[in-house]
Amino acid sequence: MRFSYEFFPLRRAFLFRGKECGLNRRRDLGFLFNPRSIALVGVPRGFEPGRVFLQGLLDQVFPINPKADSIDGCRAYPSLKEVPGEIDLAILLLPAALVLPALEECGQKGVKIAVIYSSGFAETGDEEGKKREAALLQVARKEGIRLIGPNCMGIYYPKNGMAFFPGMPKEHGKVGMISQSGSLAILLSRLAGPKGVHFSKVISSGNESDLNSSDFLFFLGEDPETEVVGAYLEGVKDGRAFLRALQAVCREKPVVIWKAGRTPKGTRAASSHTGSLAGSRMAWEALKEQTGAILVRDLEEFIDILTAFYYLPRKVGRRLAILSGPGGPAVSAADACEEFGLEVADLQEETRRRLKAMLPQSGTSADNPVDLGLASVFQVELYGRASEIVGEDPGVDGLLLQGRGATAELDAQYARLITEARKKVRKPFMAISLGGMYLEEESRKALLEAGIPVYSSAERALWAYSRLYQYGERHLDG
Amino acid sequence: MRFSYEFFPLRRAFLFRGKECGLNRRRDLGFLFNPRSIALVGVPRGFEPGRVFLQGLLDQVFPINPKADSIDGCRAYPSLKEVPGEIDLAILLLPAALVLPALEECGQKGVKIAVIYSSGFAETGDEEGKKREAALLQVARKEGIRLIGPNCMGIYYPKNGMAFFPGMPKEHGKVGMISQSGSLAILLSRLAGPKGVHFSKVISSGNESDLNSSDFLFFLGEDPETEVVGAYLEGVKDGRAFLRALQAVCREKPVVIWKAGRTPKGTRAASSHTGSLAGSRMAWEALKEQTGAILVRDLEEFIDILTAFYYLPRKVGRRLAILSGPGGPAVSAADACEEFGLEVADLQEETRRRLKAMLPQSGTSADNPVDLGLASVFQVELYGRASEIVGEDPGVDGLLLQGRGATAELDAQYARLITEARKKVRKPFMAISLGGMYLEEESRKALLEAGIPVYSSAERALWAYSRLYQYGERHLDG
Repeated sequence: MRFSYEFFPLRRAFLFRGKECGLNRRRDLGFLFNPRSIALVGVPRGFEPGRVFLQGLLDQVFPINPKADSIDGCRAYPSLKEVPGEIDLAILLLPAALVLPALEECGQKGVKIAVIYSSGFAETGDEEGKKREAALLQVARKEGIRLIGPNCMGIYYPKNGMAFFPGMPKEHGKVGMISQSGSLAILLSRLAGPKGVHFSKVISSGNESDLNSSDFLFFLGEDPETEVVGAYLEGVKDGRAFLRALQAVCREKPVVIWKAGRTPKGTRAASSHTGSLAGSRMAWEALKEQTGAILVRDLEEFIDILTAFYYLPRKVGRRLAILSGPGGPAVSAADACEEFGLEVADLQEETRRRLKAMLPQSGTSADNPVDLGLASVFQVELYGRASEIVGEDPGVDGLLLQGRGATAELDAQYARLITEARKKVRKPFMAISLGGMYLEEESRKALLEAGIPVYSSAERALWAYSRLYQYGERHLDG
Repeated sequence: MRFSYEFFPLRRAFLFRGKECGLNRRRDLGFLFNPRSIALVGVPRGFEPGRVFLQGLLDQVFPINPKADSIDGCRAYPSLKEVPGEIDLAILLLPAALVLPALEECGQKGVKIAVIYSSGFAETGDEEGKKREAALLQVARKEGIRLIGPNCMGIYYPKNGMAFFPGMPKEHGKVGMISQSGSLAILLSRLAGPKGVHFSKVISSGNESDLNSSDFLFFLGEDPETEVVGAYLEGVKDGRAFLRALQAVCREKPVVIWKAGRTPKGTRAASSHTGSLAGSRMAWEALKEQTGAILVRDLEEFIDILTAFYYLPRKVGRRLAILSGPGGPAVSAADACEEFGLEVADLQEETRRRLKAMLPQSGTSADNPVDLGLASVFQVELYGRASEIVGEDPGVDGLLLQGRGATAELDAQYARLITEARKKVRKPFMAISLGGMYLEEESRKALLEAGIPVYSSAERALWAYSRLYQYGERHLDG
């Protein structure tokens, strides 16, 4: 039933840092992202879960022979030994009981890193699973192989065409991500992509029997392709090592952590999910205070905050101007601003005078929040001119824009005008694609390309901005 | 420039409760929703904001003569007087200065209710605006006309084809809504529609110079078409009257209030938006305690909570089972459950035994949250069977399902299976269309039709459910 599988020679240059076994746990993870070849051990023939890896990798490959079957046409080998040439990375998809002998075979073949997708180890909670995981680690040590997992998805490295699931975004970017949950590694990557947040490297680390979150933190902290670090964690095994890693990385890069397993029932769930000890909520709050890491509580907030760090400067001011077509959402945005520790900027007399001169007489407001009136969806030039006027006010640190054009054409013009205004005033802009009056897909893209993040509500944008503001205050002052 | 406009004879039966002027402010608002005819006073010829009313109404009309121009082809009259027959409702779109004489003309014509879209009244904050609004009210009293507005959008009554904006959902439902912001009245209706939340009646009330939120609350409280009341409020003019209305309505129906203008800057914005006095946050918290109204803080939460009241029974239990394909989001859902005052149900021994027997051996968990494993997207029957087993557990009050099928076909099967399970177990089900693994549009619709609300995250679903639970505890116990 199992067969090993030599995969495509990766298309980009690779690092090769020594032939000896047992890579350094922090520095030599290059093989993980730039293996010369990959073995997939235990690819099922049928339509079963392990197949997603093959599909994920095949997704990046363009076979030349159109008659070749997309599965069987790739040559298969009866065992790892018979694969010609060296193998850096092996991905093991076997049933738990078969992983151990396969790992020994990996050792004989000189494999450097093994990603173990297979579950049925410590996360089961029973003695057998725990013993099995301990044996795995023992063999890995003996054979000088580094392990990712077990019970994980492994690596998504879009720059090099490596993916652990079909349909992953092809774009690469600057967020490095660690996820103890494989499904969240997939979901986060797929959800963030359309929002313009792309990844340098994503590591789904599962049970972390060998390499763990602290190692990956250090690795991403030093990775030149990574500018922002994100982590979904259910627990850490060595609290002190993790604290050291987090402190080190937080000094260099923002680290956004979604910590699950905060409550007793969440902790129990985490334990049967990845076998981790979740640690108390208090401990995590203390960790946050000590390191300045940003803690988030759900998937949407996670992406919102990554978006802010992706698109906006590290150091922002707290005095915001709100420009809105719809009046109600402007009031609500002003509330959110104040409630999240930001300021609704006081506009200068001159700014208000200039706004008043350009705005329609009624149904508008020349104070902050600037209400451009219902007519603004027809007259999008109001947004362009108002953002310039407001942006030039020295008491304004950033702008939040809540509008759109009434037609696709006007909407495109809206995006163009505020993009131009931003270039002139050189301050952070955030755009809101408000439920019920969403921006056109094309406008959204144009805004993202111009460095203007797009949020689904003012509240979310302001929450993310407030975290960014706090980050700057803590890490970049003095 | 201005011309009055006789509109289509409304297609449904209408109420006609007396010919005398000056309708009772609570009981006789039937004319508002069932006018025999509507005059649009001041429809601009060009592409200007006032035009949306015409477009909104035309949206519902299917002209018989294909050669008629969609704008000019409808016969126009030089003044209200010359419109043949009676007019119940006039919508005034004129510049502020022209509203007063038009209102006098309405009086002469016997108009019963005038919706005044025009702005430039008390919300401007200047003396002239305030005086103008006072004069308006004086004329209305003298002529026996009830006013909605000024500075409002008026009425959206989908059951009768009345809309104040183009592209409003045609479906009607059971949420009655009051919004002091016209733009939010539009946005809410348009955003809620695709989520399966439909409206009985929506009233955009603006400055509320005559009829106000307390009147509309009473009206919706007694309206047999309305089962849930929603309100976006920036402030109320007569706190005591409002409290009375809210107390009365909360005894009968759930009332969900989005109160904006909670902070000093939000209050200032509210004042220039609709001229209202926002009242302190403390006062609103006290109001909530006194009446049991549900307070929300943003657009998304508003719709999430309306959705819960729309689809789920009024009285629900707090012990939930979480069934999830992806493991990470299950852990996070368990946290949210506990953090929001709900319970992750303790499954009976027998339930766990039955789950264990049906689930794949590894990568799953037969405890709550039930982790169905990554394979479940291929084997959606796991969801169907697991929800039945868990639903039959007497310690489970409701189910949260986080999954989908790997293909459109499997996804449709997923929706069908959990729909069937719900029918059998007769407990509240909530489905999550998780970012990165969204349900297919067709599946979403099928679930809604089967009475299963669909949320974009477990956190949101659980937050809404927790409000529903609290509502039941307060209003429906003993």
